[in-house]
Amino acid sequence: MGHPVVAVAIVFVSAAIAMAASSQYSHHPLDPLTATEITAIRAAVLASPLVPARPLFFHYVGLDEPDKPDVLSYAYGAADAAATSSQMTLPRRAFVIARAGGQSHEFTVDIAADNASVLSHAVHRGPGFPMFTDEDQIAAMALPYTYPPFVESVRRRGLDVGEVGCGVLSRGWFGAEQPAYGGARVAKMKCVVVDYNATANIYARPVEGVVMVVDLDRMAIIGYRDRAVFMVPKAEGTDYRADKVGPPFTGPAAPPGVVVQPDGRGFHVHGHLVKWANWEFHVGFDMRAGTVISLASVNDTDAGGLKRRVLYRGFVSEIFVPYMDPEEEWYFHTFTDAGEYGLGALASQLQRGADCPANAVYMDGYYAGSDGKPVKAEDVICLFERYAGDVAWRHTNGIGLGGLFSEVRPDVTLVVRMVVTVGNYDYTLDSEFKTVGSIKIVVSLSGILDMKAINYTHVDQIREDTHGTLITENTIGVYHDHFVTYHLDLDIDGTRNSFIKNNIVPKRNTGVRATGGAPTPRRSYWTVLYEVAETEAEGQVNINSAPADLLFVNPSKKTKIGNEVGYRLIPTGATATSLLADDDYPERRASYTKKQVWVTPYNKSEKWTSGLYAEQSTGDDNLAAWSKRNRSIKDEDIVLWYTVGLHHVPYQEDFPVMPTISGALEVRPSNFFERNPLIRTKPPENSPNCSCSIGGSA
Amino acid sequence: MGHPVVAVAIVFVSAAIAMAASSQYSHHPLDPLTATEITAIRAAVLASPLVPARPLFFHYVGLDEPDKPDVLSYAYGAADAAATSSQMTLPRRAFVIARAGGQSHEFTVDIAADNASVLSHAVHRGPGFPMFTDEDQIAAMALPYTYPPFVESVRRRGLDVGEVGCGVLSRGWFGAEQPAYGGARVAKMKCVVVDYNATANIYARPVEGVVMVVDLDRMAIIGYRDRAVFMVPKAEGTDYRADKVGPPFTGPAAPPGVVVQPDGRGFHVHGHLVKWANWEFHVGFDMRAGTVISLASVNDTDAGGLKRRVLYRGFVSEIFVPYMDPEEEWYFHTFTDAGEYGLGALASQLQRGADCPANAVYMDGYYAGSDGKPVKAEDVICLFERYAGDVAWRHTNGIGLGGLFSEVRPDVTLVVRMVVTVGNYDYTLDSEFKTVGSIKIVVSLSGILDMKAINYTHVDQIREDTHGTLITENTIGVYHDHFVTYHLDLDIDGTRNSFIKNNIVPKRNTGVRATGGAPTPRRSYWTVLYEVAETEAEGQVNINSAPADLLFVNPSKKTKIGNEVGYRLIPTGATATSLLADDDYPERRASYTKKQVWVTPYNKSEKWTSGLYAEQSTGDDNLAAWSKRNRSIKDEDIVLWYTVGLHHVPYQEDFPVMPTISGALEVRPSNFFERNPLIRTKPPENSPNCSCSIGGSA
Repeated sequence: MGHPVVAVAIVFVSAAIAMAASSQYSHHPLDPLTATEITAIRAAVLASPLVPARPLFFHYVGLDEPDKPDVLSYAYGAADAAATSSQMTLPRRAFVIARAGGQSHEFTVDIAADNASVLSHAVHRGPGFPMFTDEDQIAAMALPYTYPPFVESVRRRGLDVGEVGCGVLSRGWFGAEQPAYGGARVAKMKCVVVDYNATANIYARPVEGVVMVVDLDRMAIIGYRDRAVFMVPKAEGTDYRADKVGPPFTGPAAPPGVVVQPDGRGFHVHGHLVKWANWEFHVGFDMRAGTVISLASVNDTDAGGLKRRVLYRGFVSEIFVPYMDPEEEWYFHTFTDAGEYGLGALASQLQRGADCPANAVYMDGYYAGSDGKPVKAEDVICLFERYAGDVAWRHTNGIGLGGLFSEVRPDVTLVVRMVVTVGNYDYTLDSEFKTVGSIKIVVSLSGILDMKAINYTHVDQIREDTHGTLITENTIGVYHDHFVTYHLDLDIDGTRNSFIKNNIVPKRNTGVRATGGAPTPRRSYWTVLYEVAETEAEGQVNINSAPADLLFVNPSKKTKIGNEVGYRLIPTGATATSLLADDDYPERRASYTKKQVWVTPYNKSEKWTSGLYAEQSTGDDNLAAWSKRNRSIKDEDIVLWYTVGLHHVPYQEDFPVMPTISGALEVRPSNFFERNPLIRTKPPENSPNCSCSIGGSA
Repeated sequence: MGHPVVAVAIVFVSAAIAMAASSQYSHHPLDPLTATEITAIRAAVLASPLVPARPLFFHYVGLDEPDKPDVLSYAYGAADAAATSSQMTLPRRAFVIARAGGQSHEFTVDIAADNASVLSHAVHRGPGFPMFTDEDQIAAMALPYTYPPFVESVRRRGLDVGEVGCGVLSRGWFGAEQPAYGGARVAKMKCVVVDYNATANIYARPVEGVVMVVDLDRMAIIGYRDRAVFMVPKAEGTDYRADKVGPPFTGPAAPPGVVVQPDGRGFHVHGHLVKWANWEFHVGFDMRAGTVISLASVNDTDAGGLKRRVLYRGFVSEIFVPYMDPEEEWYFHTFTDAGEYGLGALASQLQRGADCPANAVYMDGYYAGSDGKPVKAEDVICLFERYAGDVAWRHTNGIGLGGLFSEVRPDVTLVVRMVVTVGNYDYTLDSEFKTVGSIKIVVSLSGILDMKAINYTHVDQIREDTHGTLITENTIGVYHDHFVTYHLDLDIDGTRNSFIKNNIVPKRNTGVRATGGAPTPRRSYWTVLYEVAETEAEGQVNINSAPADLLFVNPSKKTKIGNEVGYRLIPTGATATSLLADDDYPERRASYTKKQVWVTPYNKSEKWTSGLYAEQSTGDDNLAAWSKRNRSIKDEDIVLWYTVGLHHVPYQEDFPVMPTISGALEVRPSNFFERNPLIRTKPPENSPNCSCSIGGSA
């Protein structure tokens, strides 16, 4: 999130769509809620006598997934074979957060076919609020137009009130240093010039200097400040719509190209289950997390196709975006995008042939609007096989000792993609499955900078710290961070795992020869010191501090020659950590961003790294708070929390729309297989058998 | 390099091929030497009375490129327009290193059409030797078969001398602690079992315990040690040839797929010049460096197609691979692959449809064999457009303020690829050009581990540090590093550049409001402290030590709003630095591997980071040594040296052939363009104009 003027996604509230839920696919216990189910849940909550207060708005409606042991039994069969997947029926439940009477209500709802009933109800008493709703934002956006001080501010700037628009921004949390407003659910509002004839780029034209405070439950402006007038940046050069920048299209371009698969796709989607090459997994959807990958397992083809578990559940738990301008209109820009706005709710409809290539298939999502009715999020997930021209493995044997041959296996991967547009920013979130057994999570950022209007038109005029880069006239691209935190419940070959730091440490060559050789003149080397993380404190790692291979291993499973089976983490760029002071409020809310790696014991309730009620959260219910208990993580069911982090210093090229920049984490089998699982993979079709061999034995 | 048993590449010594040089393309001054030219150079050197000693072996023959100002004038026109490219004829010269009479001779050779003459000659007097030749290795490999102690060692192991083969390994440099052998050009030799009927994987079956010393000039074994007998690992499960692992091919596989470009390719190759989208560059070939990218410039389409310089010359300067086993048979494994073996000489013939996709085009290289005759390296460079399914930029505008539209531009890049197989390891070396103006250099490692035989068959038997991982029975994958160092002579929008560290530093919020706002409860933020590197010492950076954006800027060129035009470095994984002790011999030779980034003033002679004579180099002529002068690098013609580094702890999956692992550096325009250069790029063809827009203004 940056400047959240239009943080509201595409809303189709349609009974017809709600009825169009698929009928033939028999439910998997982790399937996301269907439109029919959401409709039934709404009816159950509204019919419940437990919360008579009205109006009642739905802030979150999602699957309350069955307990993990039950899901594992369903998916893989129970350990004692008492129950198998074909015999089990698991409870189908939803978790709901609704606001009514100034309170946040939690409901557990039992769903049976088209019926639903409330199982339990509780009122949230602690700090924080649920995600904003569409209604919160749409209703609030209407307020300034009839608020006289705002109308006056707009006039002062020579603008017409009809050409401005305002958006709801979370105000963060700053303890007693920020007005309490009697505990009301308040947010801030800031505004931009909206003139789509002049430019699509509303973020490029902020009405700087004006900040409002809005009470979202009372739906009224309760605070107002117009500190100073700043120049509104010009619209010229800011548009990015194809029909406004051309023709002619003078930008650089490569010719069209499309991947053709003569034998068709290699993956099969049955409901939400996907099978591809040696992988099987489930793709879910949640209005807060977006895409949820579950029950990913890899077939060990060298072990007769044995299905081996890798990932129980993986999803983006939070995107924390603190801006680095401490000044009045900007200091509170410390967004927790998932917890405040919802990644699934803000997933963009993927553009066919552009967001995803022509060989992609698409999935829809359903979530609840603020009225509880189902909203269809169309084409928000795509899956495609990626033919990037990479090589999975290769070797050329030289002619020197009589054998000249080359063996090459091209790499093809399966990508599961969602694009989440949180106001100005667009996050392309990929899970990439590799036949070698890796899962690579890739975060790619594009979209529009959060911009501050300033009266300067040239760098030479600037004397003070503007907290950003002058990226065009009258416009500062404000410094900020992106911290995308993944919840990755790795279950390497089973539930109980340990977290290992294979520390790579320098050693002095002492001349003691373990194998009986002569002393050597070599003075140093490095070796690997194996360290098991015993408790959560030992599971927190800054990966830039010292070299180490970090692994999740199953200590009770070993390869034939005795290595613990495991997966290791391979960070690939974007390893920034937070530079905020420990006593600063946003840092207290998101202190987990000081380390890229945290490991916790699995706890069904610990899903949201910024807390269940992330909006105005205080840090009492976040990853760092849970971990203070310093629970054992050795040979337990453990969860990896990994943060992809970027310090973003804007440059002029980031304007008016930013070129994509990426960071990634690969989890890669490491002593998981007995050997490279791709050795028996067929070489490319275009040449039989030894296609990739040239020559032969000489 | 690892275990260099068969470090010898494909050698076609053929007069017919030598004559087959292209005739129609008129030379660019940076074109690599043709077969005809190499033939003429050979004749000139052999005819020269300056070195009568015979035999004479050619160790290096490469282009001695014209001076940089002349090349720039040729390519871009002189600053004063006195000479333009069409008028200039530049001298055509070669640089040759040959061994004769126990000395290393340097020749500069003038080439005129099919004739050549020696211009100058010098004898190298300092430490170090030129690259090994094919002949060095082939002749040495024959020696052990008739060396009685070796024949006896082989018998002791129950092997037949006909089923073993040995290879030449550089012995590194260990000062006075290693025998001097009277200054002779010596190397070590180690051996493996070679039985292609049993397995292609000769590296999997080392004859451990035996090390020989060979005098390469006398071509005789002058040292021998058989310390102990170790088990020879079994062949079973080690082969990787398609016709040996199948059919059936039981490994996981994706379906075939191919990129189809209905309008054809987007790039044009004229001789060695490539034009694609907004890029122009020259692709060269050198027997030591491999691919050389020169004169890369980008057209600024927003500035009327102005050609703007980015990279004068970029190539891999060295690949340093120290192993971490200090014991007798392994301590000297500290390879400098480019300087000892030659990356171009070891470039593998690319496998069509496997190493490069079907839409690739290929280039050959020519180099000199040890007899000076031209060797054709066929299909060693490929170029292809990469359709990976990535997005160049995108934004979806939400419906909130009345405008719902989505604009997406898919990303297509141009890859220039070479695969260098240095004995066991295969390096895929890509230069990827992006329309956004970036160049991404990608190092991908595959191939075969350097393995040590050991008597253990299970981890539980191991009590001491084996300096590696037991990856299969009787086999240790030895710990090691890979440091791939690039010479990148960036010339950002001109020759004189500065190196800037935009340090990202935490600040305490003091409450002083530069813009006159009220105090805020925000307690901290970060800002950017601009630092110009004045001298070489300030140009050395460990990128993991503190957050900073590192840029090359042209201080005399600014954007319209006053930002210095620049490119910044974006490291993407593989940022390891050396852990060797500063006083250790291999570290003294390659002390530049302690930092990923070095910046030096341009000096035509400073090409090889490990020194011109890297073989047994002592560190007196390397990047660190040059930089000790601490020359000015501010507003000068400066060069970036960037090292992609990996600590490689082997895992069982790396056996018998290692799945590819990658690291990269992107250099990306940062205030170079006035704005994102892709805004005026046409959306995909499959939908007209606003193809990627959904909906419209509401």
